Amino acid sequence: MEGKITKTYNKVSPEILEQLRSVVGDRRIQFGEAVNPVYSHDEMPIYGKYFPEVVCEAESTEEVAAIMKICSENNIPVTPRGAGTGLVGGCVPLYGGVVLSTSRMNKILSYDMNNLVVHIQPGVLLCDLAADAIAHGLMYPPDPGEKTATVGGNVSTNAGGMRAVKYGVTRDYVLAMTVVLPSGEVIKLGKTVCKTSSGYSLLHLMIGSEGTLGIITELTLKLIPKPAYDISFIVPFKTVEECIAAVPEIKLANLDPQSIEFFDADIVEMSSRFTGEPIFPVNMDGTAVAASLLVTLVGDSQEALMPQIRQLGQVAAGAGAMDVLVVDTAERKKAVWAARSSFLTAIEAQTRFLDEMDVVVPVDKIAKFLIFVRSAGAETGITIRNFGHAGDGNLHIYACADDPDEAEFHRRAKIVMDKSYAKCTEFQGQVSGEHAIGHAKKEYLRESVGDTVFNLMVQIKKVFDPLMILNPGKVCTNLEEAE
Amino acid sequence: MEGKITKTYNKVSPEILEQLRSVVGDRRIQFGEAVNPVYSHDEMPIYGKYFPEVVCEAESTEEVAAIMKICSENNIPVTPRGAGTGLVGGCVPLYGGVVLSTSRMNKILSYDMNNLVVHIQPGVLLCDLAADAIAHGLMYPPDPGEKTATVGGNVSTNAGGMRAVKYGVTRDYVLAMTVVLPSGEVIKLGKTVCKTSSGYSLLHLMIGSEGTLGIITELTLKLIPKPAYDISFIVPFKTVEECIAAVPEIKLANLDPQSIEFFDADIVEMSSRFTGEPIFPVNMDGTAVAASLLVTLVGDSQEALMPQIRQLGQVAAGAGAMDVLVVDTAERKKAVWAARSSFLTAIEAQTRFLDEMDVVVPVDKIAKFLIFVRSAGAETGITIRNFGHAGDGNLHIYACADDPDEAEFHRRAKIVMDKSYAKCTEFQGQVSGEHAIGHAKKEYLRESVGDTVFNLMVQIKKVFDPLMILNPGKVCTNLEEAE
Repeated sequence: MEGKITKTYNKVSPEILEQLRSVVGDRRIQFGEAVNPVYSHDEMPIYGKYFPEVVCEAESTEEVAAIMKICSENNIPVTPRGAGTGLVGGCVPLYGGVVLSTSRMNKILSYDMNNLVVHIQPGVLLCDLAADAIAHGLMYPPDPGEKTATVGGNVSTNAGGMRAVKYGVTRDYVLAMTVVLPSGEVIKLGKTVCKTSSGYSLLHLMIGSEGTLGIITELTLKLIPKPAYDISFIVPFKTVEECIAAVPEIKLANLDPQSIEFFDADIVEMSSRFTGEPIFPVNMDGTAVAASLLVTLVGDSQEALMPQIRQLGQVAAGAGAMDVLVVDTAERKKAVWAARSSFLTAIEAQTRFLDEMDVVVPVDKIAKFLIFVRSAGAETGITIRNFGHAGDGNLHIYACADDPDEAEFHRRAKIVMDKSYAKCTEFQGQVSGEHAIGHAKKEYLRESVGDTVFNLMVQIKKVFDPLMILNPGKVCTNLEEAE
Repeated sequence: MEGKITKTYNKVSPEILEQLRSVVGDRRIQFGEAVNPVYSHDEMPIYGKYFPEVVCEAESTEEVAAIMKICSENNIPVTPRGAGTGLVGGCVPLYGGVVLSTSRMNKILSYDMNNLVVHIQPGVLLCDLAADAIAHGLMYPPDPGEKTATVGGNVSTNAGGMRAVKYGVTRDYVLAMTVVLPSGEVIKLGKTVCKTSSGYSLLHLMIGSEGTLGIITELTLKLIPKPAYDISFIVPFKTVEECIAAVPEIKLANLDPQSIEFFDADIVEMSSRFTGEPIFPVNMDGTAVAASLLVTLVGDSQEALMPQIRQLGQVAAGAGAMDVLVVDTAERKKAVWAARSSFLTAIEAQTRFLDEMDVVVPVDKIAKFLIFVRSAGAETGITIRNFGHAGDGNLHIYACADDPDEAEFHRRAKIVMDKSYAKCTEFQGQVSGEHAIGHAKKEYLRESVGDTVFNLMVQIKKVFDPLMILNPGKVCTNLEEAE
């Protein structure tokens, strides 16, 4: 097949194992039978399990560099791994070799209050960084749903999350990073400044590159002062179309919301069954709620936000909302956002087989796209569950089934996925908003961007990793192992 | 010299000229003696004048593609050019060949009010886009000082401007683009969505690449609803150090200012002489003003902004400001911002020889850096003028002299520049915030980023432009013409 690269790797010999052991010591290395099976997959084992020969847990840039040097000299593939919370097989070692775990590189190194930045190691968990920043009176704005992901993983997939509509995505908060190249060389990209025009942005190339161009070993992230007050509103609608049509109205009304989340009646029902308590309305005065928005506004105080709150009410009424339900107590906010954050877990707990897509479509195409996917699912015997970040067009869509056997599920899910990704491309959307490509979505990426762009990506991969040893088989590399 | 590439280009023969003429017609081509000398330089002719053999004014993606195809097949260098307002020689045809002007590609194609984006051709002037967006009730946030630059040029240098402290830089508003590769192939990068994790970001690689990787022929830009109200404040200080130290205080106070501009007494005096009217204070109750901040807040109304306005007063007083002068009438705002925008013109009008730097340093290093550069200037017989975007650490610094001859000025300016860029690197700054690298700052870029990163840039250039025909000699390519 065009673009395939024929490549043979060496196995990790006892000599190479000793070299690796001399870098990380006895207690941070696993090999052979002792490798924890968790390293063979991420949160989507349905895309296949692949065992590494060795797992090394690095603690510093120097150790990562030493490991990469050993592996590049010995032609051993290396797959970097954070918390393993990915959904596209990005951290799965397709060709064996070494899994390089950054989970012990979990130190928040320092805050620079004059420049409002924090320096961290990449294995810091998102929830830990978020809490620590708040304790410093600051906020790290990116807020992906999976709070136990590493920040390094978030940077590698350019994760977005719930607050992207106001604050932007992870990319917008990465000012600088230290990177170990596949050769073991260490480079620094970016600086503690928000503005630069100093050569090609290798920093932005590295963000979202899923650990295929280099291994991030240190990050400098921009923080903002913590907003003093936030208030959320549940806005239920009778139809999905009306619900989605309200989104650009809210954006145009200059309310600058922090979040505009979307969910339909199905997901609310699943979430209620899972959490045991109904959080979101399913019925208003006898009329069924088809879909709702969850809108959050931030400001200095409730008083200061009153003009925006009143305007949100007017816009919602004009857009056909059934009501605007205030979520203002600390307890209620916690319950509502916990329910929102549990959507995926609720689906997983109640579904035997599950495949996922994370497309982004222009905001005004959301309703049409959802209707298309549901209909494709219904034709194929696949149940579609979805929720998403309506404010930015990023939809998390799950193809679910309980009945068929696994092979039959794969066959049916593939039909739905093929049709849906093709429709997404037709609607000028992107294959992934924040879950990335990994190895599971590679062919959809190629179809979406076309051969010329895909081949530019392959050439860029070769510039950084001429030996093709870093996270091979991901994003844009189609490897064929030599016989 | 290491990294130099030996290359020989063909001259534009009568046959090639006819092929080019068949693309753009008789009225949009200049050649030989008829080439307007303006195409031999940008706004810094001090970096050298270089004449193209031919100038083609393209009007469409198809024409740009056809020109690139002819030039790639015939080994002719092509230098893209917008309005020619650059300051580092980026649009200057170092090796002759074709200048491809995008200035006729100046159409605002369409607005998409559902997704809050605008589609434009790259030759639209920044001032025209800004005014047109306002007329649609929207705002294009990037606001570089040079309003007659093309937006394509702004994207190619990732220009920042006065509002970057709140809204970010040009990079943050580019959602998608059409690009003609050096081969003449047309690719599309990005989509009308704000969130993506779909392969390496070639979109972000293209932004800030100064027309060396491809020619941008169409842009999709994000807009925001127009803020209802803005108010500015002049905040004078007795010392430069106190003035700069106030900047992080203002940022930490959660005021979310749109701009924090900095200027010292010298520049205020030059500006007054130039415009004929004193706009900024030079003296408060008998005490000389050493430097001032110009702070702008935006919101729904003056009433809604009162808490922030009061807080700015408190922060300024705490930071030792001499006063806080309100700029709230339309007439006064216009005068103040016009004076601010005229700083560079004022310097140019009153200076015989001038060299420039556009470094970015961490905000808490601004004062130390300015003091260093002034002292380096004084030691060398060079007057330093400066102003800048204090909120983001981007300083526009001018090395000026009237007395020596041009060769002597170059010698002295180089001493100051060499020392200052080295100090910038020591302070963890960047070579350029928004003026970019062109051919004038290439060696400073190499020194700042180091050989490994510089060579990665060279390899990336070769991926996009293996024949090295597009804007050669810029950013990271060191060409040596073969004898």
